[in-house]
Order: sequence, then C-alpha cells, then structure tokens
Amino acid sequence: MKRPILLSGGAILALAVLHAPLQAEEGMWTFDNPPTKLVQDKYNFAITQQWLDHVRLSSVRLNDGGSGSFVSPTGLLLTNHHVALGQLQKNSTPEHDYVKSGFYAQTSAEEIKSPDLEVNVLVSMENVTARVQDALKGARNAEQEFAKRKDVIAAIERESQEKTGFRSDVVTLYQGGEYWLYRYKKYTDVRIVFAPEQQIAFYGGDPDNFTYPRYDLDFALFRVYENGQPIQSSNYLKWNPKGAADGELVFVSGHPGSTQRLDTLAQLEAERDLYEPATLKILHSRIDTLKKYSATGPEASRRAMAQIFSLENSLKAYDGREKGLQDKRVMDAKRSDETKFKAQVAANPQWKAAYGNAWDQIASAEKKAQTRFKEQYFHGLNSSLANLAQQIVQYVAEIKKPDGERLAGYHESQLESLRLGMFSPAPIYPDMEIARITGALELDLAEAGAAGGNDPWVKMVMNGKSPRDVATELVNGSKLTDPEVRKKLVEGGESAVAASTDSMIVLARKLDPVRRELTKWLEDNVQSVEQRAGEQLGKARFAAFGKSTYPDATFTLRLSYGQVKGYPMNGTIAPPMTTMYGLYDRSASFGNKGPFELPQRYVDGRTKLDLATPFNFVSSNDIIGGNSGSPVVNKNGEIVGLIFDGNIESLVGDFVYEGETNRAVAVHTAAITEALRKIYGADKLAAELLSAPN
Amino acid sequence: MKRPILLSGGAILALAVLHAPLQAEEGMWTFDNPPTKLVQDKYNFAITQQWLDHVRLSSVRLNDGGSGSFVSPTGLLLTNHHVALGQLQKNSTPEHDYVKSGFYAQTSAEEIKSPDLEVNVLVSMENVTARVQDALKGARNAEQEFAKRKDVIAAIERESQEKTGFRSDVVTLYQGGEYWLYRYKKYTDVRIVFAPEQQIAFYGGDPDNFTYPRYDLDFALFRVYENGQPIQSSNYLKWNPKGAADGELVFVSGHPGSTQRLDTLAQLEAERDLYEPATLKILHSRIDTLKKYSATGPEASRRAMAQIFSLENSLKAYDGREKGLQDKRVMDAKRSDETKFKAQVAANPQWKAAYGNAWDQIASAEKKAQTRFKEQYFHGLNSSLANLAQQIVQYVAEIKKPDGERLAGYHESQLESLRLGMFSPAPIYPDMEIARITGALELDLAEAGAAGGNDPWVKMVMNGKSPRDVATELVNGSKLTDPEVRKKLVEGGESAVAASTDSMIVLARKLDPVRRELTKWLEDNVQSVEQRAGEQLGKARFAAFGKSTYPDATFTLRLSYGQVKGYPMNGTIAPPMTTMYGLYDRSASFGNKGPFELPQRYVDGRTKLDLATPFNFVSSNDIIGGNSGSPVVNKNGEIVGLIFDGNIESLVGDFVYEGETNRAVAVHTAAITEALRKIYGADKLAAELLSAPN
Repeated sequence: MKRPILLSGGAILALAVLHAPLQAEEGMWTFDNPPTKLVQDKYNFAITQQWLDHVRLSSVRLNDGGSGSFVSPTGLLLTNHHVALGQLQKNSTPEHDYVKSGFYAQTSAEEIKSPDLEVNVLVSMENVTARVQDALKGARNAEQEFAKRKDVIAAIERESQEKTGFRSDVVTLYQGGEYWLYRYKKYTDVRIVFAPEQQIAFYGGDPDNFTYPRYDLDFALFRVYENGQPIQSSNYLKWNPKGAADGELVFVSGHPGSTQRLDTLAQLEAERDLYEPATLKILHSRIDTLKKYSATGPEASRRAMAQIFSLENSLKAYDGREKGLQDKRVMDAKRSDETKFKAQVAANPQWKAAYGNAWDQIASAEKKAQTRFKEQYFHGLNSSLANLAQQIVQYVAEIKKPDGERLAGYHESQLESLRLGMFSPAPIYPDMEIARITGALELDLAEAGAAGGNDPWVKMVMNGKSPRDVATELVNGSKLTDPEVRKKLVEGGESAVAASTDSMIVLARKLDPVRRELTKWLEDNVQSVEQRAGEQLGKARFAAFGKSTYPDATFTLRLSYGQVKGYPMNGTIAPPMTTMYGLYDRSASFGNKGPFELPQRYVDGRTKLDLATPFNFVSSNDIIGGNSGSPVVNKNGEIVGLIFDGNIESLVGDFVYEGETNRAVAVHTAAITEALRKIYGADKLAAELLSAPN
Repeated sequence: MKRPILLSGGAILALAVLHAPLQAEEGMWTFDNPPTKLVQDKYNFAITQQWLDHVRLSSVRLNDGGSGSFVSPTGLLLTNHHVALGQLQKNSTPEHDYVKSGFYAQTSAEEIKSPDLEVNVLVSMENVTARVQDALKGARNAEQEFAKRKDVIAAIERESQEKTGFRSDVVTLYQGGEYWLYRYKKYTDVRIVFAPEQQIAFYGGDPDNFTYPRYDLDFALFRVYENGQPIQSSNYLKWNPKGAADGELVFVSGHPGSTQRLDTLAQLEAERDLYEPATLKILHSRIDTLKKYSATGPEASRRAMAQIFSLENSLKAYDGREKGLQDKRVMDAKRSDETKFKAQVAANPQWKAAYGNAWDQIASAEKKAQTRFKEQYFHGLNSSLANLAQQIVQYVAEIKKPDGERLAGYHESQLESLRLGMFSPAPIYPDMEIARITGALELDLAEAGAAGGNDPWVKMVMNGKSPRDVATELVNGSKLTDPEVRKKLVEGGESAVAASTDSMIVLARKLDPVRRELTKWLEDNVQSVEQRAGEQLGKARFAAFGKSTYPDATFTLRLSYGQVKGYPMNGTIAPPMTTMYGLYDRSASFGNKGPFELPQRYVDGRTKLDLATPFNFVSSNDIIGGNSGSPVVNKNGEIVGLIFDGNIESLVGDFVYEGETNRAVAVHTAAITEALRKIYGADKLAAELLSAPN
C-alpha cells in the first residue's frame, strides 16, 4: 500500500472537526505528543523519551512516497519493494530487469545508486505556532492572512536551513491549530542492496493488494551513503528474527500520507459527490492507456509496469475510500460528530464569536471551488516531460522573487530537493509519453472540453489537431529527455527559457499564465478562506478538548500503537498471521497461474524452507498510505515486522478508524530471514542484519 | 451446512411469486423438468434420460436432514460427517466417542447399525395435479378445499403405498401449480463404516462454517443393508479420484430443504419483521442453555455436542438470511418483480378474475397469522421426551380416524417412518433434558407469558412453579427414556395412554387440546387461504411463463448445474479450490489452537501427504441447506466431489440466487482418497471405492 498519488486539490482542502472519544488504538500521534498514557493504561508499558528518540532517529521518510528504517549500524535501510520499485525500474534495462529478476549486491561495489531518491530523518521538532499566528496580526481579511502566513513560513524555513543546514519544513497540524518546524537530515546517495523478484514481493498482484490473509515478501534493502561511504550510526533498529507474536503490543513509526478525519461534512460531501468520482474516472483512464501501451510488446510492458502498479494501487485505495463515503453509517457518524461539536461551540459565547462561523465559511468556499473543479481535475497532460517543462518555466521565474511570494514548491528551502528530481537521469520513454499524453487529452476533451471545445486550455493545447498528433508533435519536438538539456535551460535562466523552441517548453510557457490564474483564484477564493476557518476550528478543538487527540496525517513522522491480532472477516476470523504453507496453498489453489504463480526459486526451494515460518501478520495499528515501509517495533525498540499494506476494511481509514476490523498488514521478520538464507543464499546480508549489536 | 431446523410455521406459509428471467446456473430443477436446454446452450452437453435415471437412482435422502449417494456396488453410502453426526453421537458412549476419535470398520462385522436413520431413494414420479385439482371441485370456500385436498392427498399416498410397497409422498410444487406423487425405496438398516475425527470433519468450527476458503474433510461412509445383507446394485456413482477441475461443468443431485424465492412481499416482510427475529432469539437461547450445560463436565459436553453443532449451524444460516432480508437491494428487487408480475396478471381480464386477488388474500392471512405468532414460536419445551409424549398421545388418537382427517404426519403412509423415530433406542439424557426444558420455559415465560402470566399454555405447564422445578419433576417422573415403555403405551392404545401417570404423558394430554385448537385455527385462517391463493399464483405463473422455471425447494430430489470457479471475495478472488497446504497454514496461523487445532494423526502424518492435493472446492451450483452430502457429479456421471456447505455469500439464497458470488462448497474426492490411504491406513476402503466397475 503505497501512498496513493494525490491527483489534485482534494488534500489541500482538508480541514478540522474533532470526533471524540477515540477508539482504543486509534491515532497517528506526533512524537511531541505520544500516546504515553493510553499505552500505559492498556498495556502497562511506559514509553520513555529515550525509546522515542531512538525510534524516531531510526525512522526514514522516502521522497518516493513511503517510509523506512535503518536496520544496521552501516546504513542498511529497510523498506517495501513497492516503495523501492520506482528506483528499481529506473535502474533496469531490457537486459537487466531487476524488477522481474530481483537484485542482490554481494559486495558494496555492486550496490547501485538510485537516480533520484532522497531520504529524510527527522532530527528535531520546534513549535512555531506563536510566531506564525503573531505574523497574521493586522491582516484585514483572509487573503492578507494567506499572504502573511506564506511569508512567515517561508522565512522560518529559510532561516532554519541557513542556520542548521538541515532540510526545514513548517508543518501545519490540527488544520492550523499548531505549526511546527521539522528539521530533517537529508541523504541523496541511496544504493540498492537487495530486492526479491516482484512476483513474490507483490504476490497475488492487484487482486490480493489491500487484502488479507496475504503472502507477500514486500521488502527491499537500500544502503545509505554520505561522502561516498556507508553511514555509521547507532540509530538503527535491532533485527528481531523471531518477529511479532500473536497478542503482542507493537508500534509503527512512519509517515502516513494524508487523512481527512477532521474534514467538515460539507467537504466530505463534495469529496463524495464530485472529487472522488472524478479521481476514479482519471485513474481508470490512465490505467487503460498504459495497459493498451503495454500490450504492444514486452519492452513496453516492462517500461509501463511500475506506473501501472502505482495506478492500480491508487484505484483500489480510492475504491475503498469511495465505499466509505457511500456508507450511510460513516456519514451519519460524521454528521452526528459535527452537530455535537457545533453545539458545544455555540454554547460558549466567546467560542461562538471566535469560531462559530467557520463551518459556514468552509461550506461556501467549497461551493465556490466546485465551480472550477473540472479545470483542476481534467486539465492535465499526464506526462513526465510536460511536468519537467512546467517546473523549468516556473523555476526560472520564481527564484527571482522574494521567498515569501513564490509559488508553493519553489521556496528557498525546497530548491535542493526540487533540483534532484528536475535533473534526475532516470529514463523517460518517448513512446510511452506519446501514449500517456494521447490518453490524457482524450479524457480532457471528453470532460473539460465538453462545452463545444470552447475551453481555453483545451484550445491552447489542441490547436485543432487530434490528441495523437498533438502528443506526437510535443514529444518528438522536445529534447527534455536529456537531463543535461534541462540543466542548461535552468542555468540559462529566464532568457534561455523564453528563447527555447523546445516544443514542451513552448507549450509550458503558453499554459503558465492559465495555471497561475487558476492557482491565484483558488488561493483567494478557497484556500485562504479554508485555512482561516481551519485555524478557527483547530483553536476551537483545543479550547474544547485540549490536546487529547492527534492531527490528520501530513506525510510527517507519526507513532501508532496496537496489538498483533486477527479480526472478523467475511463470516469467519482472519488469523493474526499467515505462514509459508499458505503461499504454496494459494499458488496451487490457482493452478500456479497469473498473479499467483510462484517464482522458480520458490518452486525449487520449497523443501529447504520451514513452511511453518510466519509470513505476513496483522495488527490494530492505525496507519494509512505513506506508512508503507514503516518498521513494526516491539517494546524493546527492535524491529519485528515491516508494514506494507492495510486490509480492505482499513480503506475507510481516510475518514474513520474502525478498531474491530481495521488492520495494518506487515511482513514478518522471520519470513525475511528465512527467505534471505534459504531461497536467495544471501547469508552475508542475513548475517549483517542478525549480528548487528544493539 | 446441514438443513437448518425448521422451528415452526415459517416454512408451511411459503407461497408463490415468480421472478424472471433466471440467472445463468440458477435453479434447483426437478428430474421431470431438467435444465437440458440451458446446459446444452451454455456447455454444449446433452443430458440424456439414461444419465438422469442413473444419477437419480444413485442419489439418497437421509431423514436426518441431508443428502447422500451410493458410491459402490455393495451399498457404500457417502454423505457428510455432519449429516452422520447424529447417528455417530447416538452410538457413542463415554468410553467410545466416535465423534471425537472417528470410526473405521475394517470388516463388515465391525459396522455399526444406526438407531433411527431412514434413507430414501426416489424410484418414480407421477404427476397427480389433475386428480388433486379435480377433487377440489364443488368446495364452497378455502376451508372446504383444504379438507378435500388433505383427503385426496392422503388417499393417493395410501393407495400407492398399498399397491407398490414404496414410501409414497405427494409433493406440492410451484406452490400448488403442480402436485406429484414421489415413490421412494426406503432403507432402515444403515450401518456406519467410516467417519474421521470431528476436528477434521468440522475443521475451523463455527467460525469457518458457511465460509470459504475452507479446509474441511466433512465426509462419512455408511453401508446400506437389506435383509441383513449389503445391498447389491449398479445404481451407484463411480469414484473419480482426480476429482473436479477448475472450470469444469458439474451437477449436484440432492435434496434442498426449503427456499422462499417465490414468497410474496407480504410474506417476506412478516419473515423479516417477526419470524426471523423470533427464530434468532430462540436459537440464541437454546445455544446458551446447552453451553451452560456443557460447561458442567466433559461427559455433559460430549452429550450436548451434536445439538450445539446443529443449533450454531442454524444460527449462522439464519444470520445470513437475516442479512438478506435486511438488504434493501434484495427487497427492492422482490418488490419490483412482484409489481411486474401483478401488472401482467392485471392486464389479462381472464387472469385478473381468476388470480388477481391472490396477493391481497395472502397479505390478510399473514396479518391474521401474526396475531397468534408468539404461541407458535414460544410455546415449546425443547425436549425429546416431551416430543415423544406428544407423538404417543396424538398417535393413539389419530390412527382411529379416517386417513384424510388425520393430523399432518399421522397419515397411513407415514406411520412406518414415524414409528422408527418413536421407538428409536437412541439415548436420551435426563440431565440434559432438564437443562433444555428449564431454558425453554424461561424463554417461554419471558416472551409468551409476558402478559402477567395469564397465557393459558404457560399456566398449564408452570402451575405456579419455577422452570427448573417443573423441568425436574417432568423428567424425573417419566420413564419414556426407555423405548419399550413407549412401545407398550402405543400398543395399549387410547386407554393405556389415558391411564398413564407418566409425567410427560400427563402433560401431553393436558396440552393436546390447546395444540389442536391452534393447529385448527391456523388451518382455517391461514393455511387454507394461503394454499388456495398459492395455487392461483402457481396457475398464473404457468399461464404467463409456461414451465420455464423451477419450484421452491421442498426437501425432494433436485438437479442443479454449475461450474467449478472462484469468485470475488472481500476485495480479492477466492480460488476455485484449496489444497492440503492450506490446512497446515490455517493451523499454524492460529498457533494450532481452538477450532484450528489439527488432530494428532494429521500432525504425525504430514510428511506422508502430497500437500498439493486439492481439498475443498467451490462451484456455482444453486444449493441450500438439505443439500449437505449431495454428490458433485461430472458429465460422465462420476462423483468428483461432496457438497457440504455454501459460502457466506450464498446464505441470501433462501430468497435470491446471486450468481457472481453464490457458491456451493464441496470436499474434493482427491482429498478423501489421500486421507483414507495416508492418514487412516484405510486402504481396503479406498480400494473398494476405486476398484468399483462402472
């Protein structure tokens, strides 16, 4: 369960309503406010500051959209195969398909560098709420507040980065109830050490994705380097080869991407009625496009594989969200929570004056946003080249402005990470680009351009031609596949970009004002209003309940606690864990066909394995997309499992946590150890994991 | 999935509305109207009369509530362990617990006779609709029709039995659209040959019951004797040790118990709002009672086991029905079907006059029935002794009347089967009887006697005492545990019964007029009206659609067709079959505990087994409770599997067949062969199955 791609504005619009009380084991807690008392009361375990620091400094965020952890003193980084998939794909060629065949570097010389993977470790957190809120004083309206907020946040980030050298992000928590400065140690030399065949790392394919019982060896190992050497650190999780046991208290430390548990009803209804159906339509269209492209040959199939995986993953996640939004029970609970909270605010005259209008403000901003939602959702080219061109055109213009006035993504503190992507040597395949743009334009025409082709964006892009002609001309007329060309344009600045005749740059220049107008309109009419109202609701929540709860997920480090345990499923009970027996059962049950085929190594190696070895397991930890690759940690701070998914019942978790059935799904450490030794002969690597001193 | 016990009048009230068109593979077809064309069109297979006759004559009905088939020329009868369970329990003692340990007769001398098992083979079918309908002519109202119908049916049955010696039942099909005389060859010397441990025959226990994927060796073998010798016959299904294959066309020949697919909306609503909740309440109460009794010691636990199994099985089935009735989609479809059918009838003046009022008649009869529903549902003692006493009291009175006037169950043609049960040597445990009666009376008091204890039935039974005191006095004051005592009373006739001071007989005499009054009231006010209206709807259906469909299930022989195939399940795909690997996975997944514990033989025998052997499989055949033990037959008329359950998605099958997810669950013949040989060392038995000539 990789963090689903955020296709558009849906997530920025997330705002606050509290539902209380929490269910047992609910919560994605920040490390400054861990669930110490809850864990003490239920499990009689004391979370110490030392334990928290150790777990935090061993946890890693990957900018590909997942989580991970250090598992050896010399920089071994454990994450999911599906998080590493993009980098594996980018390093693969028709001759060496590491996605299909797996990869194992027996020596450090054989380790391969990832072209554009950045990983972050959260080294400090500082509450900057007072500074942000003070800066807003004197603003006369929501628009002014928006500008001042943006300015002060950019200043805090820039100052911190200059002072400490760390990547510095201001994070909005509790929808503006708090602002925190998070400082990250950043690594960009991250090398692939081991990956199993995708066929076992994604066993059961799209059907089994987001389900359980499961038999999935979804892990990969990187090694993190600095100055050309593996890092040396005591901040890593000791490998526990026995792994998680039924009933055990376990923690997950990772980076949940986003949740909308505190959205107002107006926002959820818009999500249900407008944004969610549009997202599903786009996902179906993108998948269709790539499947048709894949069918043209084995090399096309290899090229498209990782993207299809990611899109199907998102589609299944969105299908689950959709079911949650369509569930009368869920929406009724949301309605009842909101009604109660509103009544509580209305009953206190001071609160009523300060926060009482927030819901209506959000509702009317939502209505306004909907008038231009088709532009937000369907004006897209679905193209890596077009995205790069847009970044280049915006980059050269933005960096000349004062930091606080720049577009999101171009602030001083963000530039280094941005350049890593812009200049990545990862391959871009022209034929696949043409296919993707063609498909996107067909959808754009059918949707946004439905009003007789009078949509200005559509006119500008299409210029009276067919989608395939436009796509072909754009791709064939561009040299942006070469990272050196991109670098030169950026180095040449505004004049070089203005003079460029590269077809993608030319189009990006034309579209730039259209995009900026939409961004500005959304800021002035929607985001500024919703941020202000969100802050009010955040404050109202603190006033009413104190800091007894956790903020919505923001792809920042969180701690969840839970228990290894089965759950009621489809009329029976799902077990707390599966075993390697089950892998062979599922394969034989389907005649060893399709997504249930076993890699040859597993057919040949069966008799070497102890089939009773635990394989995957479930726990009641509250997680969401973005937690993929998170370590499952025991009371001793050892790693006992590796999160890779949530069960189908957890997909409603974007909106509510349902403790009886919501389960995180993890690879058991015993399975990894067993496979490394007996299937892959990777004894040296297994020894590195096992021999690490604590 | 044993046929759930029919607790009361719910089933007698079943009547007719057609929903058309059929889904592919829907239908429980009578052997006079097999789905020949449907199978030809979809599978290009021609069902011949010879094939039909062979399958029919190899199929067996067990009066314990299940189905079975002959699988050798010397009378081996294959059915489910859970169908054989009652007989295994009745033959077990504290010293020889065949339920727990299993049973294997190495020689015919070791085979054990079942105390009260009757099995039937359908030898002929005759359409007697004209004779029944002719006999109703001249009746002036529904009550008169009811009496005449009862009389002519009893006459047909009696004449047939006298003439042929066969058990002769008139079966009402299409809710009175047709009447058929079914003649059965009856066997009552049925001996146990083989049963595995219940722990493997009901693997996964109540949690896994009615679910899939599944790992359940739910089979047992009887041998049928006649005149002290095993029967010799060519009417048996040849054992196919390869078993069913994915995608294969398969047939199920068995005895589905009852469905309510043609009920009117008024009937379904009454079921949903009144009868279903009452049934669930009774089941919960009965289970609670027996679980408390079980907890008093291991022997109590042994005694109660089979009944708890049966009640929990019913509870889970009724829970599934409940979900169906509560499903808006299902009820909306029923409403739409009924509206269309009504409109079709109303559009034809002749049909309108003859059938148009049927729905309203049923609806008002339903309303009337509801005024006395608590008496029907809650006036029960839940006691084997009390049931026997009631039978004895009624028997001596009824057999003196003309056949056509007797109570249901006491007609001439039914007496022999009735006596088999009345005089069964199966043990009755007084302590368990006391526990059951106490529990039933507590529920009776809480429900029917809620009106201040003024309910006449309650007053009569309780006589001012406590439930436990009443139960203790009744059981301790009765000698009916002894079959000889029961025989003597029956032989002594009315005078002996009138003179008896046996506490159970005394109470049955007191309650007899109360029961007769309720029966008569129901006949006059409900059944007669609903039978008449049902016949009208049956005729309307034939008029509108011809005989293009199948009648509701009536625990008579039916043929269904379908395909071995997986289905969408809980977010993924359920496989067409499971393997023995999966048994070991499920056991290890749950730490080999509780209902997932493996019998010691399976722990010890693991290395002898080919773990890839298919274990259970699913097919799209349309079945329902009562089909348990039915053979799964291939195109060659060989047996390839043994039905033992339906999946959780099929429980709505009482009301609708949903082809996408409705699946029959069967034991694969390969698993039976593998286990007999490698786990049980029953090579001789396996050889008998395998060497049988065709």
